[in-house]
Amino acid sequence: MNIVVLAAGRGKRMHSDLPKVLHTLAGKPLLGHVLDTARGLAPGRLAVVIGHGGELVRTAFDDGTASSPPAPGAASASSATPTAATDPTPIRWAIQAEQLGTGHAVMQALPELDDAAPTLVLYGDVPLTRADTLLRLVTLAGSDKLAILTAHLGDPTGYGRIVREGGAIARIVEHKDASPDERAITEINTGVLVVPTPFLRRALASLRNDNAQGEYYLTDVIGMAVAEGIAIESTQPDDNWEIEGVNSRVQLATLERVHQHKLAADLLERGVALADPARIDVRGTLVCGRDVFIDVGCVFEGAVSLADGVRVGPYAVLRNVTVGAGTRVDAFCHLEDAAIGASAVIGPYARLRPGTKLSDEVHIGNFVEVKNGQLGHGSKANHLSYIGDATVGARVNIGAGTITCNYDGANKHRTVIEDDVHIGSDTQLVAPVTVGAGSTVAAGTTVWRDTPANALILNGKTQVAREGWQRPVKKKG
Amino acid sequence: MNIVVLAAGRGKRMHSDLPKVLHTLAGKPLLGHVLDTARGLAPGRLAVVIGHGGELVRTAFDDGTASSPPAPGAASASSATPTAATDPTPIRWAIQAEQLGTGHAVMQALPELDDAAPTLVLYGDVPLTRADTLLRLVTLAGSDKLAILTAHLGDPTGYGRIVREGGAIARIVEHKDASPDERAITEINTGVLVVPTPFLRRALASLRNDNAQGEYYLTDVIGMAVAEGIAIESTQPDDNWEIEGVNSRVQLATLERVHQHKLAADLLERGVALADPARIDVRGTLVCGRDVFIDVGCVFEGAVSLADGVRVGPYAVLRNVTVGAGTRVDAFCHLEDAAIGASAVIGPYARLRPGTKLSDEVHIGNFVEVKNGQLGHGSKANHLSYIGDATVGARVNIGAGTITCNYDGANKHRTVIEDDVHIGSDTQLVAPVTVGAGSTVAAGTTVWRDTPANALILNGKTQVAREGWQRPVKKKG
Amino acid sequence: MNIVVLAAGRGKRMHSDLPKVLHTLAGKPLLGHVLDTARGLAPGRLAVVIGHGGELVRTAFDDGTASSPPAPGAASASSATPTAATDPTPIRWAIQAEQLGTGHAVMQALPELDDAAPTLVLYGDVPLTRADTLLRLVTLAGSDKLAILTAHLGDPTGYGRIVREGGAIARIVEHKDASPDERAITEINTGVLVVPTPFLRRALASLRNDNAQGEYYLTDVIGMAVAEGIAIESTQPDDNWEIEGVNSRVQLATLERVHQHKLAADLLERGVALADPARIDVRGTLVCGRDVFIDVGCVFEGAVSLADGVRVGPYAVLRNVTVGAGTRVDAFCHLEDAAIGASAVIGPYARLRPGTKLSDEVHIGNFVEVKNGQLGHGSKANHLSYIGDATVGARVNIGAGTITCNYDGANKHRTVIEDDVHIGSDTQLVAPVTVGAGSTVAAGTTVWRDTPANALILNGKTQVAREGWQRPVKKKG
Repeated sequence: MNIVVLAAGRGKRMHSDLPKVLHTLAGKPLLGHVLDTARGLAPGRLAVVIGHGGELVRTAFDDGTASSPPAPGAASASSATPTAATDPTPIRWAIQAEQLGTGHAVMQALPELDDAAPTLVLYGDVPLTRADTLLRLVTLAGSDKLAILTAHLGDPTGYGRIVREGGAIARIVEHKDASPDERAITEINTGVLVVPTPFLRRALASLRNDNAQGEYYLTDVIGMAVAEGIAIESTQPDDNWEIEGVNSRVQLATLERVHQHKLAADLLERGVALADPARIDVRGTLVCGRDVFIDVGCVFEGAVSLADGVRVGPYAVLRNVTVGAGTRVDAFCHLEDAAIGASAVIGPYARLRPGTKLSDEVHIGNFVEVKNGQLGHGSKANHLSYIGDATVGARVNIGAGTITCNYDGANKHRTVIEDDVHIGSDTQLVAPVTVGAGSTVAAGTTVWRDTPANALILNGKTQVAREGWQRPVKKKG
Repeated sequence: MNIVVLAAGRGKRMHSDLPKVLHTLAGKPLLGHVLDTARGLAPGRLAVVIGHGGELVRTAFDDGTASSPPAPGAASASSATPTAATDPTPIRWAIQAEQLGTGHAVMQALPELDDAAPTLVLYGDVPLTRADTLLRLVTLAGSDKLAILTAHLGDPTGYGRIVREGGAIARIVEHKDASPDERAITEINTGVLVVPTPFLRRALASLRNDNAQGEYYLTDVIGMAVAEGIAIESTQPDDNWEIEGVNSRVQLATLERVHQHKLAADLLERGVALADPARIDVRGTLVCGRDVFIDVGCVFEGAVSLADGVRVGPYAVLRNVTVGAGTRVDAFCHLEDAAIGASAVIGPYARLRPGTKLSDEVHIGNFVEVKNGQLGHGSKANHLSYIGDATVGARVNIGAGTITCNYDGANKHRTVIEDDVHIGSDTQLVAPVTVGAGSTVAAGTTVWRDTPANALILNGKTQVAREGWQRPVKKKG
Repeated sequence: MNIVVLAAGRGKRMHSDLPKVLHTLAGKPLLGHVLDTARGLAPGRLAVVIGHGGELVRTAFDDGTASSPPAPGAASASSATPTAATDPTPIRWAIQAEQLGTGHAVMQALPELDDAAPTLVLYGDVPLTRADTLLRLVTLAGSDKLAILTAHLGDPTGYGRIVREGGAIARIVEHKDASPDERAITEINTGVLVVPTPFLRRALASLRNDNAQGEYYLTDVIGMAVAEGIAIESTQPDDNWEIEGVNSRVQLATLERVHQHKLAADLLERGVALADPARIDVRGTLVCGRDVFIDVGCVFEGAVSLADGVRVGPYAVLRNVTVGAGTRVDAFCHLEDAAIGASAVIGPYARLRPGTKLSDEVHIGNFVEVKNGQLGHGSKANHLSYIGDATVGARVNIGAGTITCNYDGANKHRTVIEDDVHIGSDTQLVAPVTVGAGSTVAAGTTVWRDTPANALILNGKTQVAREGWQRPVKKKG
């Protein structure tokens, strides 16, 4: 099968400098959704027609960042299609320099298509069509029939109506050309269709643009098929949002909610407990084990996996994070590119930044930031600390207000804290520095030289009391 | 009255290791809701039939943690039934070793029932039936009639239909056995019923399981009552969610929202200002004074009380907290097991942990954690501090970055700060230590010995400037 | 035109000590909405009738704080009416000492009205009527006709019905007095009307209160107009929420959501990307440039402006803030009375307090509070710091845990950090103090004297290791 995706439109109503198909739904460009679905159908050729902002579109997909990886099994909510996993079909880019209609757009892709297989036409701004729906359509078309995806709408105003005679599709009549009887028809043309490729070449070659807009319409191909006596099949999506396109921010926001509600319903169906299915956002892949609880307002981005029994508190933000079994992530956590072990306690207000790796039973508490830090089994940093570029052993206790001074104004350096160390509160560890195993650092100490094991480390200090001291008096404003 | 609650089901569709009736709605197990409602009816005997995970269920309730205390008066939103307050009816546990149907389940409870009173049968996975509805049903039953709770559903598919003759209930026909005419009936059997206990014993003894499932159905008792000429009464709930059961996470999430909207509506009705009734979660009891305002996204757990004029900012989480009149709790606060006085200012980003007690006019500001700390009238800790295991007097000012070093690596110790102390920023108070009344501690001081009153406390320091110093140069990666 | 706004009601069902019209919708008192709309119509005279809590109402508006300024152009969501910008029409207060009905209320305003112009009657508790709707009504009335705002309701129960004869309004019949045929009428009287002022005086003078409530009804004026043969015009609002009044917290919460959804729809329509239109709260004026993205759960208060390409993360709270182009405001930020330059990175968990001014490319990171601080181009304070009353130059790096000690217990002092300074972590700057350009302050330093430029500043310290030290042992509880 060939697949042609039309992605040349500007999207003027988006009021944006970004090409329409690069606007994101669930964190992925609209076109990324369509391409993931397309690749799930394993097409022999995959052509994308670009125009407005075409170079931006091409760059976004050629560097591979705009299309997300598929989810593994288990309870996962994701818009990725599983079969897209291995070796994705490469994109053949076709340029539509001028926007002269959908028929003209498909013409630009003809050089990329294989005549031996039929061609499925999709739209880069219709992100949520199910692969199953398309598969049904492709199967109906076989090798020599035309197959159209139609839909029944409560209000079909504006759409091309499907006129049937004796059950068979006779023609499509545009809304503005339709008679009152035809306007009463609620079955509409979605624009998605499968066409035998040799016929498609022939039909596009004879398309005319003698209409009000002066455009070449792909829809006219259907009339030609009827004229040639080619059989026309049709099927409908299970849900009408599958065929909804994005032309405005309102439509995008509406589809985002449709999609999020579907992802939430999937999670519930697989046994994840959600405090409120209307208040969770999944922008990527969320894989959950058994008896996972997610409180209100959480946001998941990229690839997140939560093992059995994980509890996520309200308003946590997780981006590319793995969380081990039985771990609790409390309210207001902000976790990014981090791996957390089992039975850990994170937050509230914990910030984990890229490169963080926490072993089992680690505790990271409120107002603590970890960046490129690794903490061993059972270590704790519960209060107001900055752990950056640090390797921390097991059973270490890091007191409140501890700071690894990893930056000398020019370069970053590493702090090593060995097993069983107790770091007193408000300590500065001036990297590069190593605190030896079993040591204790007194509160308020600046440590700038490596320390021996099992020692007490401190700065010599005096505590002075100036008695009878007069505190300053408030000045008159 | 006897009440039998059926709670033996496994809840396979929950995909959970937890017995179904222990899943929580508004923070309380489903069975907890049913038991609170049941106890509100002051039954002479209260029997619960358990099976799958029965020991877990029994333990959860016997230790008294799974059923929440009732709310006092005032503007409160709570699922607790007021009359359940004093001396709750003890639970008589009955074991259903094999799941052989609802009739079989009730049989297991028969030894616990008093023949002199009728028996009400409830379901541990139907959490939201109103006590008023049940009271109506019990009253209709009197001492010698059978009373069934029925409901009119828009879509009765799947439910047993109530077949009436001349207005009286003649029989109940299961959906699969119903004729087209019977399927058109929209009145259905909820399963909740009141039965004269001697008749219940007799009827259950003659139940048969010669049906497709090989189960004993409680519903068959109704047919026997008709046959014996026992009068059958019926009533309906005010809202159909009262009879909805939980068999899946989707149903649980749906009922959670129904319940939360009801709690929010109750709060509004009593004069609480909610920024968005769809974005508040109450999991326990929330008692509010006059002119309380609650901003979007707040979560209340356990017993929370907010006095007159309290304002709670967006996304605050409060668990077992009392807040005095006129106090402002700002955005992103996380408060647990704490008591806050009047006219206090808390947050944003304040974390109060168990044992915190704040007097009137205390200010706790951003990124400040208080744990088991007591602050006297008008004291302030506004920035980036950790106040743990501390007794703080009145009119104390605690500078930014102050830390009570309460943990020596093995034991916790107490810090005492007397009245009118000014603690300079970035100070460590190494407990056990007392700062005398009226003292001033200089910024950046480590205090490890008790200090006299009215003194200036500092560590001897020199400030050195090495002029012409060369800062390190950035190394090439 | 004269406008009379009735604002004397108590609002008993609000259960509040605040007069009803001072309750806020989108952060502005109900009456403020009505007055803004009224002023948008440029009335010659604007009279407000007050009664219950009248002094509170008067004070709230006379000091000018209760009515918000209008928005400039661009993509803005605001309830302010643009034309209200210059020199607002002054309010003429009229006192209704006793609440004797709507007719009686208007009587109190008669001394304030100009007979040469017609009079529009509005209600202080009906906040969302569109100016366009009123303009239509006023135009219909001309100088000598009466014009009534009516509405078609799905359920008109309780409202006065519009009885028409031959299309013309014949009379208004109250619900309780209506015949079955009249009750079937779905067109109702909203109470909003325009009346020729001389006729209004005449009609009010002959009003009678011989009804069940003993009140003078403004509605009776319509019957008198019919009797006098005055032509009666009518129009309807585009949306029925335009005529909904607030009598309870439930109604207020409902209208708040209606209003917020409308503001969100406006933002989308103008090209702002909203992650969820149902989870944004705008209480004031939000002006957005091109390609602005706002994530879930953000709250905007006062006047906020976001330049082109600004991205606001989830759960940010912004009050009176301007944000420059391309700046990113991350999750959980709390920004108030602050100006932020272009290409800055703020948060997550950044707190900006009044007086903060950040130049382009400034970074303020997690758990950092800035109060009355100005940071120059490219300066950074990324972790756990308090920057209060400080002037910071360009290219300054402020290490984690830095604190400006601005308060000596009695007075606030200023810290000056000149260009290119590197402040080491956990440093205290004891104000008043200046750190010279190009200097480096070592980690853990207390700086209390001004420092020379290009120097390394430190406190003399010794690092001591007491080897073989025995850590305390955990005591038995």
